[in-house]
Amino acid sequence: MCRWLAYLGEPLRPSTIVLDANNSIVAQSLDSSLGAETVNGDGFGFGWYPTDAPAGTEPALFHSTEPAWNDQNLRELTRAILSPLFFTHVRAAAAPPIQQTNCHPFRYENWMFMHNGAIGGWHKVKRDLTLAIDPSLYPNVLGTTDSEVLFHLALTLGLADDPVAAVGRAIRTVESVGHEHDVQFPWQGTIAVSDGQRVWAFRYSSQGRTRSLFHSADVPTLREMYPDAERLRLFGDEAHLVVSEPLSEMPGVWVEVPESTAAILEPGGYRHEPFLAD
Amino acid sequence: MCRWLAYLGEPLRPSTIVLDANNSIVAQSLDSSLGAETVNGDGFGFGWYPTDAPAGTEPALFHSTEPAWNDQNLRELTRAILSPLFFTHVRAAAAPPIQQTNCHPFRYENWMFMHNGAIGGWHKVKRDLTLAIDPSLYPNVLGTTDSEVLFHLALTLGLADDPVAAVGRAIRTVESVGHEHDVQFPWQGTIAVSDGQRVWAFRYSSQGRTRSLFHSADVPTLREMYPDAERLRLFGDEAHLVVSEPLSEMPGVWVEVPESTAAILEPGGYRHEPFLAD
Amino acid sequence: MCRWLAYLGEPLRPSTIVLDANNSIVAQSLDSSLGAETVNGDGFGFGWYPTDAPAGTEPALFHSTEPAWNDQNLRELTRAILSPLFFTHVRAAAAPPIQQTNCHPFRYENWMFMHNGAIGGWHKVKRDLTLAIDPSLYPNVLGTTDSEVLFHLALTLGLADDPVAAVGRAIRTVESVGHEHDVQFPWQGTIAVSDGQRVWAFRYSSQGRTRSLFHSADVPTLREMYPDAERLRLFGDEAHLVVSEPLSEMPGVWVEVPESTAAILEPGGYRHEPFLAD
Amino acid sequence: MCRWLAYLGEPLRPSTIVLDANNSIVAQSLDSSLGAETVNGDGFGFGWYPTDAPAGTEPALFHSTEPAWNDQNLRELTRAILSPLFFTHVRAAAAPPIQQTNCHPFRYENWMFMHNGAIGGWHKVKRDLTLAIDPSLYPNVLGTTDSEVLFHLALTLGLADDPVAAVGRAIRTVESVGHEHDVQFPWQGTIAVSDGQRVWAFRYSSQGRTRSLFHSADVPTLREMYPDAERLRLFGDEAHLVVSEPLSEMPGVWVEVPESTAAILEPGGYRHEPFLAD
Repeated sequence: MCRWLAYLGEPLRPSTIVLDANNSIVAQSLDSSLGAETVNGDGFGFGWYPTDAPAGTEPALFHSTEPAWNDQNLRELTRAILSPLFFTHVRAAAAPPIQQTNCHPFRYENWMFMHNGAIGGWHKVKRDLTLAIDPSLYPNVLGTTDSEVLFHLALTLGLADDPVAAVGRAIRTVESVGHEHDVQFPWQGTIAVSDGQRVWAFRYSSQGRTRSLFHSADVPTLREMYPDAERLRLFGDEAHLVVSEPLSEMPGVWVEVPESTAAILEPGGYRHEPFLAD
Repeated sequence: MCRWLAYLGEPLRPSTIVLDANNSIVAQSLDSSLGAETVNGDGFGFGWYPTDAPAGTEPALFHSTEPAWNDQNLRELTRAILSPLFFTHVRAAAAPPIQQTNCHPFRYENWMFMHNGAIGGWHKVKRDLTLAIDPSLYPNVLGTTDSEVLFHLALTLGLADDPVAAVGRAIRTVESVGHEHDVQFPWQGTIAVSDGQRVWAFRYSSQGRTRSLFHSADVPTLREMYPDAERLRLFGDEAHLVVSEPLSEMPGVWVEVPESTAAILEPGGYRHEPFLAD
Repeated sequence: MCRWLAYLGEPLRPSTIVLDANNSIVAQSLDSSLGAETVNGDGFGFGWYPTDAPAGTEPALFHSTEPAWNDQNLRELTRAILSPLFFTHVRAAAAPPIQQTNCHPFRYENWMFMHNGAIGGWHKVKRDLTLAIDPSLYPNVLGTTDSEVLFHLALTLGLADDPVAAVGRAIRTVESVGHEHDVQFPWQGTIAVSDGQRVWAFRYSSQGRTRSLFHSADVPTLREMYPDAERLRLFGDEAHLVVSEPLSEMPGVWVEVPESTAAILEPGGYRHEPFLAD
Repeated sequence: MCRWLAYLGEPLRPSTIVLDANNSIVAQSLDSSLGAETVNGDGFGFGWYPTDAPAGTEPALFHSTEPAWNDQNLRELTRAILSPLFFTHVRAAAAPPIQQTNCHPFRYENWMFMHNGAIGGWHKVKRDLTLAIDPSLYPNVLGTTDSEVLFHLALTLGLADDPVAAVGRAIRTVESVGHEHDVQFPWQGTIAVSDGQRVWAFRYSSQGRTRSLFHSADVPTLREMYPDAERLRLFGDEAHLVVSEPLSEMPGVWVEVPESTAAILEPGGYRHEPFLAD
């Protein structure tokens, strides 16, 4: 169910990662080696904050129901712009409908959200979880995915004030409602969320066997390890990625994010902390 | 907001009406003279019951987000099949999203439903009305339209047992919830619904100024009026239509359905009765 | 590059083959085991002749740029109709553009055509081959594929009079033009073509290593082999298929069509003959 | 047949013109007052050169087959970027196919081209005109429009060296071939072409009755005329537009480009000269 990546760092032409990496997210759309599904061809999304945008700026979104691998518009767009913070997501849908409102990332004001995974027993719990969304946010739910509902639960439960706590509460709500409906493992997935300045990524599942998640090592360290690597010259010292699966096979570049972890990209670099790990 | 037509009669090649009439529904998609909007280009739908299908058969649906006027698949399909009962709908959306799950007709088991109009103050009442849908039907709501919610309210309130009463109750629910939210005119619209054997059409609005609706005169009568009309030879004696606006300018062919009326097409012919007319 | 199937026999609900077979063509769109590519997600096409249509009737076409695996319209259509002769094709494009005019099957009057394979050195030979199309047919070429050009070459070279000879001449033209441009192996592929009464399928490549092709065994023989097979009851005694790869794993059902062969489905059954086998 | 606009000036958020003008190009897609067709809903295109791009940079293209009026991606994109030179085009197709390869603007290296109008007797002359394209450029023709062929004729006839002369020669070729095929008025239309530094616009038809074309007055002059106009503060002193029809009703802002004229936007401002005016 889906693959994604999040970038934070010096303004970058997104095509560098989205198109040109060996195992780019576009390559993963056609053939993902670590994903739950090999093919992630049920639409995609690209969301970005413009360079030099003040705090609080809304990200821009490009959503399409076409497979990413042959989409011309995605190629054009990611080659033409620069961005210091962007998300890309390729979707493997469990079932129709395939529609733009089901494409990640989702947005609310300056917040952007994407997800790889699933809410267990979705048809049984959808109504109760949707009712738990704040009524003022309810009209903003436009698609049919569990992911969009989780995002709005997190918004309801304080995302803007404390993202780690709010996503934790949203997942606990999913688990609680799921258990009421006899769902054994109500939550599965990795999440990325951003306010335009930082990225919070989460890896957690009720079963403790979550989809893969990796972050990139610091670029200065990598330059020392690979002084001749041409590709590293495309990136600034502050560039960091969180990704569903490694974009290349260079040893040392990609570090797994542990289970039950919140990973944070912020101007000072990468760090992580335990998440729902009790 | 939208134009539609419903046909019941001898099995007919739907293109005869959908494509070939002077003011066909496809022509109306580009230029409707009586509609609230001139252009109905935000997708379309075609739903049909197969010839000789037993009672209880599900209709088949073809939905597209493209404008109907240049859609090749609609042309191909409506020229290749025969059907004794079909609906066609062209959509003028108030706003995005334009997606197949927002295209009419909607379906539940053997029931098919379409609508031209709007629920007033939709963003204010959407949540309350959605909650009034039977929880077992709730997962079947896939789009963002007021029309789909009205259909599921009618299903909740007994559509399968008494269509006229159930649609009446659903509209009264809309009016009641709307008034609670200070919406002056909560309901506007024409509706068509079918179980595969009969068609019920409704014209009603809270303000008493509903979008246009017409039915066709009996074909045998028309043959007497126009003994030389070649086009009439394409239709059987039992052919009847209910349409948002006349498909031609032949005097006597199209008869307006009055305000606050339920119009019924059934094997014996056309009849109508008062609807919410108190 | 693509997978396809062709059916001739008693009128059949196409979903029986297109959707419901174990390794249906829709399943192959997501995961083909014998195809040159695993994923055939760059659009699809379904073309059919109506039941009881007189000789010379045009087939109807449904083309979509969406992947077949989650396309709702294909499911609806193939469940709702009956047809005695239909083609289905799922596409793996070498490159953009992904557009309906590049979806197979192609049509000219009552003729329908589809292809799996490629013309070698396409960019070098495209202009010369397009010029070899009869000028009166030239405006009918609407897409960018090598397949559509081959079809129009075959039409130019007598398809309506002698399909086997005309397709042979068209491929020889491709080989001749390719060799002029130093293309080592100018033709690769399997083809199906129909006039609405019969199906001609071809397996040939300049290198002698053509994409896979199979035909189904006679249904009465299969009934003797598998007297308890429920699925066989869905098919009439005259049902025959030609397919890119087997739709099931039942031994004896699928027989490989040899290299350099023209396979013919006609009312009397299946037969084949050598094709360009010198 | 279509409406378009071209902007050259200080880097601008394109939404200012594309979305926010009273009679914006998106508004014209649904309801054009001066166009040959009222509705321009058969897809659209947006092409732009990035800010600070060196001479010779390729423009980026966004093409969609959806109507512009409800397209979310166009809104997102034109609000998120800045560009000193961009084209927008909304299409009214004479007939299918509606596909991205038929959306303007077209591109070749750093050149961008769009057109409103038609080549007369297109089906009769298409083959001859396509053959007149340089064989090395021939594989770049991907759609079915007359416009794309005219662009490639202009490229063949020296666009990169002398745009005014080359477009003139291309139109004369169209007229010559048209007359050979007994087409009375072979060319109709307005064109815009850019190399990334300047914009050349053309208004000419064989009949001398060309589709409408306007350019904007100098911004400093407009500021003197309308000292209180808030909207003018959004534009720099160098901002110039060429448009199919005025984007507002402010007197003095929009000046008609005469028949048989080449209009040039360049860093120094607007100027025009006679074109094919003999």
